[in-house]
Amino acid sequence: MLPVYYEDTDLSGFVYHANYLKFFERAREHVIGVKFLKELYDLGAHFVVHKASLEFKSPAMHGDQLLIESKGSYSRSPAIHFEQNAYVIEDGKKRPAVLGQISIVIIGKENRPIRMPDSIIQKFAETNISDLDLSGY
Amino acid sequence: MLPVYYEDTDLSGFVYHANYLKFFERAREHVIGVKFLKELYDLGAHFVVHKASLEFKSPAMHGDQLLIESKGSYSRSPAIHFEQNAYVIEDGKKRPAVLGQISIVIIGKENRPIRMPDSIIQKFAETNISDLDLSGY
Amino acid sequence: MLPVYYEDTDLSGFVYHANYLKFFERAREHVIGVKFLKELYDLGAHFVVHKASLEFKSPAMHGDQLLIESKGSYSRSPAIHFEQNAYVIEDGKKRPAVLGQISIVIIGKENRPIRMPDSIIQKFAETNISDLDLSGY
Amino acid sequence: MLPVYYEDTDLSGFVYHANYLKFFERAREHVIGVKFLKELYDLGAHFVVHKASLEFKSPAMHGDQLLIESKGSYSRSPAIHFEQNAYVIEDGKKRPAVLGQISIVIIGKENRPIRMPDSIIQKFAETNISDLDLSGY
Repeated sequence: MLPVYYEDTDLSGFVYHANYLKFFERAREHVIGVKFLKELYDLGAHFVVHKASLEFKSPAMHGDQLLIESKGSYSRSPAIHFEQNAYVIEDGKKRPAVLGQISIVIIGKENRPIRMPDSIIQKFAETNISDLDLSGY
Repeated sequence: MLPVYYEDTDLSGFVYHANYLKFFERAREHVIGVKFLKELYDLGAHFVVHKASLEFKSPAMHGDQLLIESKGSYSRSPAIHFEQNAYVIEDGKKRPAVLGQISIVIIGKENRPIRMPDSIIQKFAETNISDLDLSGY
Repeated sequence: MLPVYYEDTDLSGFVYHANYLKFFERAREHVIGVKFLKELYDLGAHFVVHKASLEFKSPAMHGDQLLIESKGSYSRSPAIHFEQNAYVIEDGKKRPAVLGQISIVIIGKENRPIRMPDSIIQKFAETNISDLDLSGY
Repeated sequence: MLPVYYEDTDLSGFVYHANYLKFFERAREHVIGVKFLKELYDLGAHFVVHKASLEFKSPAMHGDQLLIESKGSYSRSPAIHFEQNAYVIEDGKKRPAVLGQISIVIIGKENRPIRMPDSIIQKFAETNISDLDLSGY
């Protein structure tokens, strides 16, 4: 669960819209694993966001508790596609705040998409990211 | 023109992806006008982002100069749709960094979309926002 | 414990210096209590930072785990003084990253410091904030 | 001049306090020069903030125009000390918003302070940074 802090809001009293991309990115780091991201860097590769699409359903405010749900699907292409949604938890129920679709790609030393290295496919095979559903983090 | 500062980057050396939503929002404030946004607030209304879709074409780095282009189209519905693109300016040429589609809606005191007040339609009629093409800000 | 995410870093690979003020503010919200901050707002009062002093001892990097320690001391004046430190946790040991001194004041509807309302003094008396040492949040 | 955007504010309607460190950092990049900072990086050196002290005098709000004044003083030590103030411009007058004292140090490949390279001293001698007073940027 992710509390909404002062820093997350703007003068409207709502969470500033761009911050949901930050929340989704934090969640992806937990899904993929920081340790693994660091190993990737040592191999000269890292992920970048390729496409992001957000639909804002209802506002979240200071003090609200956000739940971020992330589902990733992966193929041998250099892209991983995430469906990521942010919910405000009220009285134990989930009110949709933002629905997101995020695609990330793996790029190499030339800053171009590369074929997913076998070590990474192996890694994803182990963590089975395509089935992963991280409810909150 | 918008210089890329330290604060805009992350450890990859590129602009952190969420910051483009900030850049686009800054540009919209210039297009719509801060004075007008404040008058709206006094009427109990303000704009919120309803949908945002971003496609990342190439990275921008520290010290790069960004050009933000914004085109707004407007109808009597409570929404204004913006096409907003960020370009890196290199040798006088524009390299696309991020292509964006942003829809904003006007909401009232109950935090629900409202019919665009006549005073606002009048205002937009004067500034002719549907034809507006702000190249840089 | 607070993980360092991509968004927290800049191109140096370190946490961007301004973000420690955000981390300290998040911790203060936990110390003071979001529910209480909202009650204050209903009374027309809220806290603002009056002074902030930071000393950067060593860098924190992506994937590091930060511990924020906060000690508040309070008197009948409108100010609360916080000593807040950020540590990187490595092998169970605390490495000082940033040492901070933050003073906040309570302001009323005219945006001027006000005498601390009795209800607030009572509240702080209950939570005994002067002895409070929140290790992590 | 620096306009205050939505992103800079929090629910209080004021500029979020941590953002002044960002504004000051942007100003320092203009004072020192992005091109020079990049040359430094190629030499394996870069600046980090060592100490920062801020005093908040009055709030700035959405739509306000901020003026950032920066004065740097430099010696052969690895530190440069900046006095940086943010003013709100109203009716052509300067109202102090935040007064800052920022010290930055140059660090090398081992992430430790290094003696200022002669090429850098030469550079600063040319730009005469100790007398520099950049009013706005």
